[in-house]
Amino acid sequence: MDDVAHYQEPSGSADCHTRFRDVRGHTENLSATLSDEDQCVQSMPDASPVKWHRAHTTWFFEQFLLVPFVPAYQVFDSAFGFLFNSYYEAVGARHPRPFRGLLTRPSAAQVGDYRRHVDAAMQAALADLKGDALSIVELGLQHEQQHQELLWTDILHAFSGNPLYPVILPGWQECLGSPQETRFVACPGGLRRIGHANGGFCFDNETPAHQVHLNGYAIGSRLVRNRDWQAFIQDKGYQTVSLWMSDGWASVQSAGWTAPLHWRNRDGAWWQFGPGGLLPLEPDAPVRHISWYEADAFARWAGARLPTEAEWEAAAAIPGIDEYTGHVWQWTDSAYRPYPGYRPVPGAIGEYNGKFMINQMMLRGGSSATPGGHTRTTYRNFFHPDKRWQFTGLRLARDI
Amino acid sequence: MDDVAHYQEPSGSADCHTRFRDVRGHTENLSATLSDEDQCVQSMPDASPVKWHRAHTTWFFEQFLLVPFVPAYQVFDSAFGFLFNSYYEAVGARHPRPFRGLLTRPSAAQVGDYRRHVDAAMQAALADLKGDALSIVELGLQHEQQHQELLWTDILHAFSGNPLYPVILPGWQECLGSPQETRFVACPGGLRRIGHANGGFCFDNETPAHQVHLNGYAIGSRLVRNRDWQAFIQDKGYQTVSLWMSDGWASVQSAGWTAPLHWRNRDGAWWQFGPGGLLPLEPDAPVRHISWYEADAFARWAGARLPTEAEWEAAAAIPGIDEYTGHVWQWTDSAYRPYPGYRPVPGAIGEYNGKFMINQMMLRGGSSATPGGHTRTTYRNFFHPDKRWQFTGLRLARDI
Amino acid sequence: MDDVAHYQEPSGSADCHTRFRDVRGHTENLSATLSDEDQCVQSMPDASPVKWHRAHTTWFFEQFLLVPFVPAYQVFDSAFGFLFNSYYEAVGARHPRPFRGLLTRPSAAQVGDYRRHVDAAMQAALADLKGDALSIVELGLQHEQQHQELLWTDILHAFSGNPLYPVILPGWQECLGSPQETRFVACPGGLRRIGHANGGFCFDNETPAHQVHLNGYAIGSRLVRNRDWQAFIQDKGYQTVSLWMSDGWASVQSAGWTAPLHWRNRDGAWWQFGPGGLLPLEPDAPVRHISWYEADAFARWAGARLPTEAEWEAAAAIPGIDEYTGHVWQWTDSAYRPYPGYRPVPGAIGEYNGKFMINQMMLRGGSSATPGGHTRTTYRNFFHPDKRWQFTGLRLARDI
Amino acid sequence: MDDVAHYQEPSGSADCHTRFRDVRGHTENLSATLSDEDQCVQSMPDASPVKWHRAHTTWFFEQFLLVPFVPAYQVFDSAFGFLFNSYYEAVGARHPRPFRGLLTRPSAAQVGDYRRHVDAAMQAALADLKGDALSIVELGLQHEQQHQELLWTDILHAFSGNPLYPVILPGWQECLGSPQETRFVACPGGLRRIGHANGGFCFDNETPAHQVHLNGYAIGSRLVRNRDWQAFIQDKGYQTVSLWMSDGWASVQSAGWTAPLHWRNRDGAWWQFGPGGLLPLEPDAPVRHISWYEADAFARWAGARLPTEAEWEAAAAIPGIDEYTGHVWQWTDSAYRPYPGYRPVPGAIGEYNGKFMINQMMLRGGSSATPGGHTRTTYRNFFHPDKRWQFTGLRLARDI
Repeated sequence: MDDVAHYQEPSGSADCHTRFRDVRGHTENLSATLSDEDQCVQSMPDASPVKWHRAHTTWFFEQFLLVPFVPAYQVFDSAFGFLFNSYYEAVGARHPRPFRGLLTRPSAAQVGDYRRHVDAAMQAALADLKGDALSIVELGLQHEQQHQELLWTDILHAFSGNPLYPVILPGWQECLGSPQETRFVACPGGLRRIGHANGGFCFDNETPAHQVHLNGYAIGSRLVRNRDWQAFIQDKGYQTVSLWMSDGWASVQSAGWTAPLHWRNRDGAWWQFGPGGLLPLEPDAPVRHISWYEADAFARWAGARLPTEAEWEAAAAIPGIDEYTGHVWQWTDSAYRPYPGYRPVPGAIGEYNGKFMINQMMLRGGSSATPGGHTRTTYRNFFHPDKRWQFTGLRLARDI
Repeated sequence: MDDVAHYQEPSGSADCHTRFRDVRGHTENLSATLSDEDQCVQSMPDASPVKWHRAHTTWFFEQFLLVPFVPAYQVFDSAFGFLFNSYYEAVGARHPRPFRGLLTRPSAAQVGDYRRHVDAAMQAALADLKGDALSIVELGLQHEQQHQELLWTDILHAFSGNPLYPVILPGWQECLGSPQETRFVACPGGLRRIGHANGGFCFDNETPAHQVHLNGYAIGSRLVRNRDWQAFIQDKGYQTVSLWMSDGWASVQSAGWTAPLHWRNRDGAWWQFGPGGLLPLEPDAPVRHISWYEADAFARWAGARLPTEAEWEAAAAIPGIDEYTGHVWQWTDSAYRPYPGYRPVPGAIGEYNGKFMINQMMLRGGSSATPGGHTRTTYRNFFHPDKRWQFTGLRLARDI
Repeated sequence: MDDVAHYQEPSGSADCHTRFRDVRGHTENLSATLSDEDQCVQSMPDASPVKWHRAHTTWFFEQFLLVPFVPAYQVFDSAFGFLFNSYYEAVGARHPRPFRGLLTRPSAAQVGDYRRHVDAAMQAALADLKGDALSIVELGLQHEQQHQELLWTDILHAFSGNPLYPVILPGWQECLGSPQETRFVACPGGLRRIGHANGGFCFDNETPAHQVHLNGYAIGSRLVRNRDWQAFIQDKGYQTVSLWMSDGWASVQSAGWTAPLHWRNRDGAWWQFGPGGLLPLEPDAPVRHISWYEADAFARWAGARLPTEAEWEAAAAIPGIDEYTGHVWQWTDSAYRPYPGYRPVPGAIGEYNGKFMINQMMLRGGSSATPGGHTRTTYRNFFHPDKRWQFTGLRLARDI
Repeated sequence: MDDVAHYQEPSGSADCHTRFRDVRGHTENLSATLSDEDQCVQSMPDASPVKWHRAHTTWFFEQFLLVPFVPAYQVFDSAFGFLFNSYYEAVGARHPRPFRGLLTRPSAAQVGDYRRHVDAAMQAALADLKGDALSIVELGLQHEQQHQELLWTDILHAFSGNPLYPVILPGWQECLGSPQETRFVACPGGLRRIGHANGGFCFDNETPAHQVHLNGYAIGSRLVRNRDWQAFIQDKGYQTVSLWMSDGWASVQSAGWTAPLHWRNRDGAWWQFGPGGLLPLEPDAPVRHISWYEADAFARWAGARLPTEAEWEAAAAIPGIDEYTGHVWQWTDSAYRPYPGYRPVPGAIGEYNGKFMINQMMLRGGSSATPGGHTRTTYRNFFHPDKRWQFTGLRLARDI
């Protein structure tokens, strides 16, 4: 989910207006507690300012719907195309990603005006759009939901560099999930159908549905918890080279990792910085903010491994498996490559997924930062194996 | 002037209150046209956010005057010492310089409160302060004036990375200076007294006054102009290796310099980004935003050289030399080293100047961004030879 | 093949002495035309000096066979373990890889003595070794064959940085391969057995054999040629962003790629530096020294794609497909991950493959630099997608 | 002395042949104990291979004497100009400095042939050369002597990265110097004549002689010793930020300095790697392999300072000051800038000194690696303030 948005079939829904208003409104709700200054900051090249997310998701509707489909539409500001294009090479030149934080102008207030301008034009146009255009509306909303999650993880990263540890959401609570012990649930082998096939929206990287042959395997009934991770730390997991991939060990050494991102040790006790501020670490909550390298090393330490994408997806139909979505994205054992027969959409929108299918590892599920209803069992998320600023965790698997 | 503040004799002035109010008020005036977002941005490790300058100069009075000299003073916020200390190692740990731009909190408004809190306490205390404490008040004001210039050059640098080229001061005009042709004015050799000796405030690096032996020399009556620099560019100055110091040529190659910083070429015409926005280059204005390497190469190209610090200072007494201050800082041929017999003040305040006396080149004069009355002929400014974001230009000299 | 060596079943062969002598002798033959200075140089951290390869492959036999299995064996020099261990963390500390080129001592002559000392001890011991030990002998020989290829590509890389373009093998000729036009050969879909199962040596990453489901596909009958690549260059392939993966485009920009590694353009004509020196580019020879990024972009430009590992391996049984091995390693569409059920060998030898199974792309086939008989259709080679100094090329594939 | 060679008046000496033979022969003697592999290695961009030094000094005579002054001379190999030019931009393109270590060809033996070819031609030509040409001969010999020192310090640096710690000169002994205690010797102030004026060879940076006004000062009678430096380490000198220049402290942090270069601590005892190998540190020998930053911090710790260049030169005439030359180069308090009225020689030879006169600090004296008779009291050596691989030490000074 690297600034990614994607594609697919029209949402047949008649209440398009409501859905448009709800998704767009959710973005504004998310940023409501953030000051103009908070909305401007960019803490690393991987992240973007909140204001930029708000403007970029708006530009998407302007660029791909209003300009091509609504002849009377007046572009809000002709400079915004350059400023708020993320990576669509086909659309033209753009402001370099690492310098998004320099954009103190346009102001957060002007971005709000931009959003209202585009929203009004979109609401007026929705009734007349059809076919491809309606597909792009849905794509734009799905795209915006992806940025809602990035908006949160990006501002969390920025705040983590402020010694005052600002609170994003006062009163925010960790989701503890199931109180039961983790069990390994057996899953049969054989040919399984993987990928999206049954109607409704999906991104192009979930297609085409296809057959995959699996050996029998077992998968953990729950996510790995913070208390499990503390045991890994205590057992010198971060100092034991034999647990790590070679490239992972190099990251441990160069970045000095000794715990997940956003953990702080104060006088021997662990704290975690999260949307609710710097709080005592909750041992029963699923671990998050770990890289693929750490997930992989932990699994090896635990005498297990990560499930592959296909194993994870096939297990969705097996009873007894919990926490499939809604806590943390779950690293898998699979590298990001296209499904057999994959074809990107032609044109700029085709740049969404295809060009990122290298050097990244797949995540499945969805996190507490993912908007409700956004993911599904075929959903494919991806990040480079050293990234830690997303809500990333893991579930174990084993050969049978 | 690398976040530098310094030292010296008490300002005997009875109207200390007025001066305090004026200098402090000038900082607020300078930032009045800037939004909260503008005040938060940091465009490179060399620069600091406007808000940070406002807070740091305030912390100086709190740390070095209110806390030690005013027993009843209540510290505004105990976290601010960590956030707004610039480089005083003796005072304790501090927020790392490259991450000052992450401080979206405290807000610009809270920094305003901080300023008012400290100003009120200072105004109440001023009547009772004496001796050393009064010296430190004056030092704090001089320090604040230095940051007023940095505040301007830093926000100009940040704005230069925004394709909208925001205007800092609408209607701002280039100072053209003298309409006369440049002449070389002869200056006699012999022993000259250099450095500060005649009362009034100075920084410790201007002392002690001492004798320097000079050969006779000639110095340019005016600063080098933009039209001169255009001739240098036209004559392939940036492509002619023999004009450059070896380290300078490496900078030309790696940074891709082809003109001063903030120059833009649009369809063959030169524009300059400045406080008034992106405007057509004014050929008669003194050139600015050049590194020492460029000044040195230009001088060689012109069959001349830069004056030494001592030559520059001695020439101040010679009639016929114009534009001594108020346009641009003037690079000299001298490296930053202590004057013979130099001794830093003991304690934290002694860290102001001494520890920067290496790898930097001296500038003299003062610029249009320097607050009125801040500099004098003995004033020593300094930057690394590759820095270009200050209002830096040059005057030529020759051997006789 | 990143300094990798691996594992497997004993070579049942009775003429173990002969094979040992032949493989070890081939290394010495390969380096016979190289001076002591040639053997010492390391041109980049990815490469190693020839002398180091000669010593490291020898250390392997000393460390994993003579020391554990031959009680009377006298270690040649106790310092060599530190100097010539490549990456076996379990074995102890080692000289850092980027500084292998500093080892002017021991001399190439002393390394020759070391090889003779170990060879004599091995030949004396061979008759008494059995079971596991014999497996390790075979592993050591396979390991040495891998280093024979690295030795050649590493010295080629070093020589390419010398403006004199030294010749490694006078009279060396390009293999032109088949004179026929490339056709796409149809391959049926369904379940296919992939991986090594039929006896004889293999590396652990080729196991276990397992079922993979394939869609029907077509694969190119021949490798892509230099003349094809010239057409790609002419058609601005290196300037067309839409052909490239996002990370690949970043490499094109930062590294300035405009042609395969070791190509030189002289007055409009292409030359290629190879084992025979700098020679006119042979249009009919398979292209080599390309990264995965370039192979992938070329395939997209050609309206095709790379075959997956499994497609490549399954096609080996299809008639009409040529140049399966012996020219260049062929990049595939598959990322390096373990086969289902993969288990590394316990202990130091288990470090050979497993820890490299991330961030790398698979190659199949074998090159003109690969020792005869070393590869097989199940053989899995791997490099990071930006690497170009190996003999790497490509074969196209298509969906049906 | 950064690959520097320079300029001046003809050596009037009649026995030019003898001197030529002696200096050239000394280079060969220095490298006689080094293998071909030793002669090829380059351990960092600052250093050059021994073979390169041998060839470059030879190329100097070919380029600046034989080619212009001896019409019948046959260039040895036309490729050598590109390979062995150091930095003379006026002469044409050249092999990039960081890749000198890739030049396994031409071999050390061919470089020996090159030297003999040029020596023969030079010996034949010497009798007929006059005026300017004779000056260049002398310059070439002085240049070669500078490289003799670099040759030694460069190979020492390369060997220091080899865990075998090879010995350059078996039996090499530390010079202990004077057995007396260090005293501070008073030197009077006033106008002093500095620079070279009294005949004989000098480099252009020693001219013109000129007047400098000094305050009275005191200078240490001896160099600082290893035992003094051990006290500095023991007193946490490397951990005490207030002793360091700001840029120096940054180097301490980033490079992890805790002792001079080439010191090794083994079980609490200090050893030093030098031309005689890794030997117990000799407490009474002058400290060496320190950067200017370390020298400056040490002086501050000792309640003293470094002498300026002019103070050092003026003190040469004062009785009671010992170890003026022959142990270590002595860092001074002065930055490298031209003397008043300095003019480089026109043409390529003028590139020797002038273009390095920035960002470097001056050293005076001469070291045990400097060829006998090479330096004088006006001699100006220079390195960047963070460099440590030369034989650099210090002498203290104080204000009176």
